[in-house]
Amino acid sequence: MVVSAVETTVEQAWKASSAIGNASTEQKNEALEKIAQEINAQEKSIIEANQKDLKGLENKGEYSKAFYDRLLLNSERLSAMAEGLREIVALPDPVGEVTSMWKRPNGLDVGRVRVPLGVVAIIYEARPNVTIDAAALGLKAGNSVVLRGSSEAFYSNQTLTRVIQEGLSKSGLPASCAVLVEQTDRDSARELMRLNDYLDVIIPRGGASLKKTVMENATVPVVETGEGNCHTYVDEGALIEDAVSIVINAKTQRPGVCNAMETLLVHKNIAAEFLPLALEELKKANVEIRACPQTLQYWQEGEPASEEDWSTEYLDLVLAVKVVESIDEAIHHINVYGTGHSEAILTTSYQRSRQFLKQVDAAAVYVNASTRFTDGNAFGLGAEMGISTQKLHARGPMGLRELTSSKFIIYGDGQIRE
Amino acid sequence: MVVSAVETTVEQAWKASSAIGNASTEQKNEALEKIAQEINAQEKSIIEANQKDLKGLENKGEYSKAFYDRLLLNSERLSAMAEGLREIVALPDPVGEVTSMWKRPNGLDVGRVRVPLGVVAIIYEARPNVTIDAAALGLKAGNSVVLRGSSEAFYSNQTLTRVIQEGLSKSGLPASCAVLVEQTDRDSARELMRLNDYLDVIIPRGGASLKKTVMENATVPVVETGEGNCHTYVDEGALIEDAVSIVINAKTQRPGVCNAMETLLVHKNIAAEFLPLALEELKKANVEIRACPQTLQYWQEGEPASEEDWSTEYLDLVLAVKVVESIDEAIHHINVYGTGHSEAILTTSYQRSRQFLKQVDAAAVYVNASTRFTDGNAFGLGAEMGISTQKLHARGPMGLRELTSSKFIIYGDGQIRE
Repeated sequence: MVVSAVETTVEQAWKASSAIGNASTEQKNEALEKIAQEINAQEKSIIEANQKDLKGLENKGEYSKAFYDRLLLNSERLSAMAEGLREIVALPDPVGEVTSMWKRPNGLDVGRVRVPLGVVAIIYEARPNVTIDAAALGLKAGNSVVLRGSSEAFYSNQTLTRVIQEGLSKSGLPASCAVLVEQTDRDSARELMRLNDYLDVIIPRGGASLKKTVMENATVPVVETGEGNCHTYVDEGALIEDAVSIVINAKTQRPGVCNAMETLLVHKNIAAEFLPLALEELKKANVEIRACPQTLQYWQEGEPASEEDWSTEYLDLVLAVKVVESIDEAIHHINVYGTGHSEAILTTSYQRSRQFLKQVDAAAVYVNASTRFTDGNAFGLGAEMGISTQKLHARGPMGLRELTSSKFIIYGDGQIRE
Repeated sequence: MVVSAVETTVEQAWKASSAIGNASTEQKNEALEKIAQEINAQEKSIIEANQKDLKGLENKGEYSKAFYDRLLLNSERLSAMAEGLREIVALPDPVGEVTSMWKRPNGLDVGRVRVPLGVVAIIYEARPNVTIDAAALGLKAGNSVVLRGSSEAFYSNQTLTRVIQEGLSKSGLPASCAVLVEQTDRDSARELMRLNDYLDVIIPRGGASLKKTVMENATVPVVETGEGNCHTYVDEGALIEDAVSIVINAKTQRPGVCNAMETLLVHKNIAAEFLPLALEELKKANVEIRACPQTLQYWQEGEPASEEDWSTEYLDLVLAVKVVESIDEAIHHINVYGTGHSEAILTTSYQRSRQFLKQVDAAAVYVNASTRFTDGNAFGLGAEMGISTQKLHARGPMGLRELTSSKFIIYGDGQIRE
């Protein structure tokens, strides 16, 4: 049987996984520190490789400025990457934590301990910094990491992976604890997604179409990191000033990210007071409004919202606005159109805060705060691998703990089953 | 667009999922109690339906006695099913438990709360008792349940699902919190596995080929419940008497289940003392031996083991036996040939117990006890949905908690992101 290049690469990572899985925290931290040092030491060759990718993009002709910017590496960005590694060094190691242990009537001690997942594959798009961030998180949690970036970042990823491997070797760990799948065609991606013998999980990081392809084709378990069609519901009786400030923050502080607000829902009894103020502020921030008919009564500059607007993740300075009859309508709207990412109620009602927290089905449900807080650092989990919008395994920001599994450990004294 | 019968059924369960998801513990327990009562009250019609299935099987001609027995329902088995429901009533409700909550420097309180998965589909084979067991566990954890049994149990499953639905209705919950997919052909199964809009997870319960089909075809996340190629390693210096008793228990107490031992590994320094005794006892229990060359020196009645024996889950009174040079060889053998289910070391060495617990990669790792303990009840988790051998989401026995997800809840006072 001929083994493909993809399989050969992934098999190496699998073979190295017991070494990283059993490595001490000290050893893993040393490796991350060495990788950070290598990034600094090899800055010149990393930037050269990146320039090659950027030239390739220029030669292809058609690309957006934003895409070019995502691909670009410079001295400042490399320093930030090294800094990110040191932040991961500082995080507690989840591996080996006994999360609970109890005694059974027959004297067995049964407990659960955190263990690495094994081999984690990350499939991602243009940003080459993901190569370092994802590898560092995966390795710290005791996993071998299979990196599969996009063709546009080929030379950058190749060089960064070499840097990671040198860091691993210098700390006495197998270089192949982190490998790059150099084949960037579709068939290779599909093959990768079906290597159940070697991979424990695949995490796609990128746009909706990448995630869809992975969900459709993978037989290896997937953790979907999420699109965010996030809502803020301004309840009747909400504090107007706070509500305006939260709405502006959730929409405009960084509109291109998944935890930014995409639809504003406003209770009809507060609409007359709240909407003109909020819409005026949104206008100042250059936000385009897609409005329901009632909203248009307060803001004739808005474009009428279509059915499609309620399901759109704009990732831009655009906001859909809808006046609702009740909190029930707001919750229903969110559960129907939302993607289960981050949802907020702004309220002064104890009862309605409880109702919203209970009935809204999403990874993060807020009372009186901006949805922009949904990330590992803001939640206090440290760096994250992405934000899961699926219900299995991990939901919300995925930190180091979410990159582990568990096993039962059982201490006996000769017990047999009756 | 024409919506298929399968999709229509599953959509009903999805629509009912917020009702069961928000139901109180009291209401869910009442529903389970009513279902138990209905099983008793409708015993006659359940047994009639089951007789129809049994007749169908007889008419088809070819079937094993074991298969017939798995399909059979009688008064005693129905009472056991009702009893099982009442045991689930007695278990604590995992939904709503705040597993942790912490304060961030900006004053936000961030916590994690257990919530239902949503809609859980169980695809299973002949045993009609799974209809009741699986539905009860799913419902208690706040999920809508989609049941997809096999054609052989069609009438039994139909009647049992009606019984469940009557119990739900009588306690004020929507009947469609539990639905049966009545289409038992392959295409319908494939369609079911791809209904990502309605299903949060699929749990296949049955043989290896069922699980393989689900893994291959599903786009909905799957929790694989496991095959068990379980090992017991008798270390040098192990207590001989305990070791013999544990080995006999692990192999013979119930050989047809996934946590039974399939391969015995013995350290070379204890083989001469241990093997003749153990093999004599195994012979008395009618266990057939597949032996490595060294084992054959102690037990010439054994058949030589082939390479295939090391990977076989016999589920029968057959045992592969191998003498190993060291604990390292034993651990390597287990990690190569095992299915990651249940693995045991029998030892008096503190160091080697630590090494085995750390390095063996399986759902349950034992020191000095029979692998037969791997199940929800024996571990103290209560009834279980199956034993997961995958690393994502749940590993080992899946009790009520493993049928839940979590969400982050965030209490603010107007916080915005800087």
